[in-house]
Amino acid sequence: MSKKNLPPSVRLLDDPVRVEIIDQRKLPRELKLLTLTAPADFYGAIYTLAVRGAPAIGICAAYGMYVSACDRYMENPRISAEELKKFIKETGEYLISSRPTAVNLSKGVNAVKSAAFGEDIPAMLGNMRKAAEDFHKADIAMCTAISEYGLTLIKDGDGILTHCNAGALATSVYGTGLGPIVMGCERGMKLRAYVDETRPLLQGARLTALELMNAGADVHLICDNMAAYVMSRGLVNAVFTGCDRVAVNGDAANKIGTLGAAVLAKHFGIPMYIFCPSSTIDFECKSGRDIRIEERPHSEITGLYFKEQIAPEGVKCLNPAFDVTPNELITAIVTENGICRPPFSESLYKLFGK
Amino acid sequence: MSKKNLPPSVRLLDDPVRVEIIDQRKLPRELKLLTLTAPADFYGAIYTLAVRGAPAIGICAAYGMYVSACDRYMENPRISAEELKKFIKETGEYLISSRPTAVNLSKGVNAVKSAAFGEDIPAMLGNMRKAAEDFHKADIAMCTAISEYGLTLIKDGDGILTHCNAGALATSVYGTGLGPIVMGCERGMKLRAYVDETRPLLQGARLTALELMNAGADVHLICDNMAAYVMSRGLVNAVFTGCDRVAVNGDAANKIGTLGAAVLAKHFGIPMYIFCPSSTIDFECKSGRDIRIEERPHSEITGLYFKEQIAPEGVKCLNPAFDVTPNELITAIVTENGICRPPFSESLYKLFGK
Repeated sequence: MSKKNLPPSVRLLDDPVRVEIIDQRKLPRELKLLTLTAPADFYGAIYTLAVRGAPAIGICAAYGMYVSACDRYMENPRISAEELKKFIKETGEYLISSRPTAVNLSKGVNAVKSAAFGEDIPAMLGNMRKAAEDFHKADIAMCTAISEYGLTLIKDGDGILTHCNAGALATSVYGTGLGPIVMGCERGMKLRAYVDETRPLLQGARLTALELMNAGADVHLICDNMAAYVMSRGLVNAVFTGCDRVAVNGDAANKIGTLGAAVLAKHFGIPMYIFCPSSTIDFECKSGRDIRIEERPHSEITGLYFKEQIAPEGVKCLNPAFDVTPNELITAIVTENGICRPPFSESLYKLFGK
Repeated sequence: MSKKNLPPSVRLLDDPVRVEIIDQRKLPRELKLLTLTAPADFYGAIYTLAVRGAPAIGICAAYGMYVSACDRYMENPRISAEELKKFIKETGEYLISSRPTAVNLSKGVNAVKSAAFGEDIPAMLGNMRKAAEDFHKADIAMCTAISEYGLTLIKDGDGILTHCNAGALATSVYGTGLGPIVMGCERGMKLRAYVDETRPLLQGARLTALELMNAGADVHLICDNMAAYVMSRGLVNAVFTGCDRVAVNGDAANKIGTLGAAVLAKHFGIPMYIFCPSSTIDFECKSGRDIRIEERPHSEITGLYFKEQIAPEGVKCLNPAFDVTPNELITAIVTENGICRPPFSESLYKLFGK
């Protein structure tokens, strides 16, 4: 399957109004598309990781607010504006509860919810649609800008280690952490990519390897526990990851395993760059201690990607979906407005004028 | 399947003379036994990891030398002593080539090969059998002693992180890195174990979790990339691993991922203990730079434990089976003769009188 065959990870379609997403759980073996219209469709798609990556989740949830409201209105055209607003509010709370760690999710929901005002339902729905589309367009602009900034951090011939998937599938275009690699390859650079497979759900093996091979990078897939080995051999010039939530002091929550990669990078003297759209910065969150870590089902570990049983029956597991990388392990935070260096509590505020 | 049901990982049986091993690739789902008689049987069992763990491989290869020679002699009772010795020598070279990193393998082979002297074939075979049995008995004594020493390093209520499998399945009894946990549980201690699943072949999920659950430890299975998380939460008091080859300066080759665990342990101020029977110390090997790292088939990564395809077709992989942990990351090396502390180039020589 080539990248050219991949539609956007999330898109809005009309007649009837609906959202179509790539079922990312089926990649790289199969391109399956899912159609979402009701709140439970969106909740399920986000919770089960059919759509994943903080920006893509945000876009999906933003369209989800609009499409769910349209769906409800079409189901019952005599619904009052009051009732519909109540439905929209409840839908927002419901969708936000699907993944507690990603802040983009609530930003996408709230952007569209705040457009749901007035008594004229068609006008309200029009406002919601525009809010969701603007949220989506902002992501495209963000990905392009963040990729350009990231590209200034690497040079031809470099090796970059990545964890999880922060590519176009996780966003709208290019991606965040993968954006500079994809953009660099487009411009003729030769780049090696060491791709952590990213257990338990293997987003690296399944998605990042696919996206970077399609981009033309020299991809080497590794198990997560091989990162120290490739670093110790001098093969890695930089670590690039996305993130799910950044506190104002620079502590960054991202896919479980990012903390380990950051500790290794520090030990081996390799710069660690976190790619962070401003929508991911939580200015309400003082430090990583305030970030709640989602614990996911143990069958993700014991069932080896939901298939064959590979651990003893009844074994207890820990399955945190994220970890928090403390700011002292982060070389820089790359945003669409520029590159923040420590101390982050100053540079993040400065860059975003807060 | 309970531990009580498990026979020894490797044993010699008679009438006809043969070796029976547990096919560890089938655990924890199925207890399948394999019978080995010819050199290719032993090579295959070692190469495909049906038998694994440096001490168990050494025992299997030692018996393999004896059983192969018996098998050859029974096949052709008119063979000359010269021809049989040539066969034994070739068998030894062949078996040693099955896994290049583990030094126990060549020690087991050579212990039995050096008993193959004289012109009286039955006497020669008798000497070889005794050499193989002595090699096995020495492992039982070693595991018991190393577990006792290791037990002095932990206390009731501790949490221990393990990587790969250094239990009874990898040895004869108790194990090395798991020995103190098993022995501690036998003596009524309450111990938490954080078990790295150990990709790509999942020895932790499949074998260590089984052995430690049977021992009565409070087992938590984690993906390899979750080790930093559990350490950052203060859950881990010590890291225990086995090893495959230790250089005289203390650099230790062990299952891929051990280096990463050691770097993390150092960062979080947690002691890192390598369990190392003296048979694993290579006094010919000056430092980790002299240790050849086995590269294994990429299908181990792309095929997710040899089953479903989980990476894009044609993706390149790195699949080093081991990494080398430099001595400065190792708190102590636990042997059957006592506990070595840095500088290891002095303490290892002192303890083993070289």
